[in-house]
Amino acid sequence: MKGAFPGRIAVVGSGAVGCYFGGLLAHAGEDVHFLMRSDLAVVRERGLTIHTKGEDVHLPKVQCAGSTEEIGPCDLVLIALKTTANQALERLLPPLLGSHTALLTLQNGLGNEEFLAERWGAERVMGGLCFVCINRTAPGVIAHVDHGSISIGEFRRPAADRTHLVAAALQRAGIEAQAVADLVLERWRKLVWNIPFNGLSIAANGATVADVLADEGVRSIARGLMDDVLAAARALGYEIADSFADYQIERSYSMGPYKPSSMLDWEAGQPVEVEAIWGEPWRQGVAAGASLPRLEILYRLMQRLTAIRRNDD
Amino acid sequence: MKGAFPGRIAVVGSGAVGCYFGGLLAHAGEDVHFLMRSDLAVVRERGLTIHTKGEDVHLPKVQCAGSTEEIGPCDLVLIALKTTANQALERLLPPLLGSHTALLTLQNGLGNEEFLAERWGAERVMGGLCFVCINRTAPGVIAHVDHGSISIGEFRRPAADRTHLVAAALQRAGIEAQAVADLVLERWRKLVWNIPFNGLSIAANGATVADVLADEGVRSIARGLMDDVLAAARALGYEIADSFADYQIERSYSMGPYKPSSMLDWEAGQPVEVEAIWGEPWRQGVAAGASLPRLEILYRLMQRLTAIRRNDD
Repeated sequence: MKGAFPGRIAVVGSGAVGCYFGGLLAHAGEDVHFLMRSDLAVVRERGLTIHTKGEDVHLPKVQCAGSTEEIGPCDLVLIALKTTANQALERLLPPLLGSHTALLTLQNGLGNEEFLAERWGAERVMGGLCFVCINRTAPGVIAHVDHGSISIGEFRRPAADRTHLVAAALQRAGIEAQAVADLVLERWRKLVWNIPFNGLSIAANGATVADVLADEGVRSIARGLMDDVLAAARALGYEIADSFADYQIERSYSMGPYKPSSMLDWEAGQPVEVEAIWGEPWRQGVAAGASLPRLEILYRLMQRLTAIRRNDD
Repeated sequence: MKGAFPGRIAVVGSGAVGCYFGGLLAHAGEDVHFLMRSDLAVVRERGLTIHTKGEDVHLPKVQCAGSTEEIGPCDLVLIALKTTANQALERLLPPLLGSHTALLTLQNGLGNEEFLAERWGAERVMGGLCFVCINRTAPGVIAHVDHGSISIGEFRRPAADRTHLVAAALQRAGIEAQAVADLVLERWRKLVWNIPFNGLSIAANGATVADVLADEGVRSIARGLMDDVLAAARALGYEIADSFADYQIERSYSMGPYKPSSMLDWEAGQPVEVEAIWGEPWRQGVAAGASLPRLEILYRLMQRLTAIRRNDD
């Protein structure tokens, strides 16, 4: 299988997600080039380390660069920047693009595939949904906190040959990966959990998953928010059953005092992906005619809370 | 008019509201007795001072007591405790009650008349809605920050003779007071403003009235919350026009960076009246069949935020 697509791979956004997937692909023998900023010197010297529940993976030598000009054209670009930094892609991506380069966004929420498609053409764009919990614990050191999987799909079309080739490369790297027929449906399914739990972790003042579930009132608004997400998806033609939302509540009990990624961002003083996770789903749902009062109030509160934080900086 | 009702008056809850109305009534010659706790010694020595926009009122000698047993039976009891302290009334009120004693609650939100009626009989109960901005700036010193009025009504019946007598006594004391035909309707009308602006002042992290109005998103959820209040009132048979809600937004522009009372409570580390202002209106509206998703989410967030605060104490 080697030599064929995905071929030469660039990773843009070498935080936890980028280093985890890119690092395991490199470990499996793929030709992976990391764009790095703050961690560049450390990774050049010490390589990358990925602590997983099973074995630890150490890559003593990693191909990394301080600019995408140094990397040059690739066959596949993994995009793992925070969505709040998407504008930087206008500068970062062009040096990586050949005529057939595929762009695979591993970012959260809605609107990322559209961002790429508008600028570099819909046919290049793929999306991946990551169901993993990983943290960058030090420069070049990634901790894989919990099992997880990745779903890969195409932008506005069914899975194609390259979709399966990327999934296969990830599988060879030891990652549970699958190609999905409808990427947008999967994004909405993921939002059913992310919108309430990530949002309430900030709006309800530091509520972990266990805190949301333990408080009958907060759990009730989490479930109500899920109803709004279902209504938005439905208005857009993506049918997700009520029982799926019930199951998202049920399965969360086993997570304990888990901190959603937005809560970690918030606690670390990092930007929170307000538009991708709450703004864009709300806008798309309302534009399709859905009534989304709970989602609106959460979105507006998230905007306000994060704006205050920025002003405080 | 003197000698007739309201006759002997007790003030229970001698914070800003109790001292302001009770003080002006005493200044006008009414027989007013204040129940005091922390301010008792200071007020016995220095009396009460009320700074208003016009003239300052100083009462060098005030009838005050450290227990309601000392005060004994009265004709009218003004209740100006925080609603979060309502349970204390079970102990405080009985010594003040004669066979015909009227109980006038000046407290915020819904449920206070019901609380009194269940324990001491519906026929005793009156309610007052205060549209004033007053602060206690020091023991025995009240600042009347902004003009205002008070509306007096009966519990579950139209205005009666005593309603007009209390309103007249307040007018003689220089207070803009009127008897209202339907107390509950007036309470709901007041909630149209209080529910969004008091709530968002805390849930949107320190948003003054000006902050809510300046942020298009937050203003939009304020107006959406008003729609929920109108829907709750309507389900209970109280018709309030949409244009009234629009007007509540419009009139708020002149308030500037005004801090709603709940925000002052919150900043001072005092209990916030979550159940009276958000919980009871939500419960009553839902019980009457209204769909109140925005109010529910705000109520649940207020519960959670204030519970965390209490746990931090």
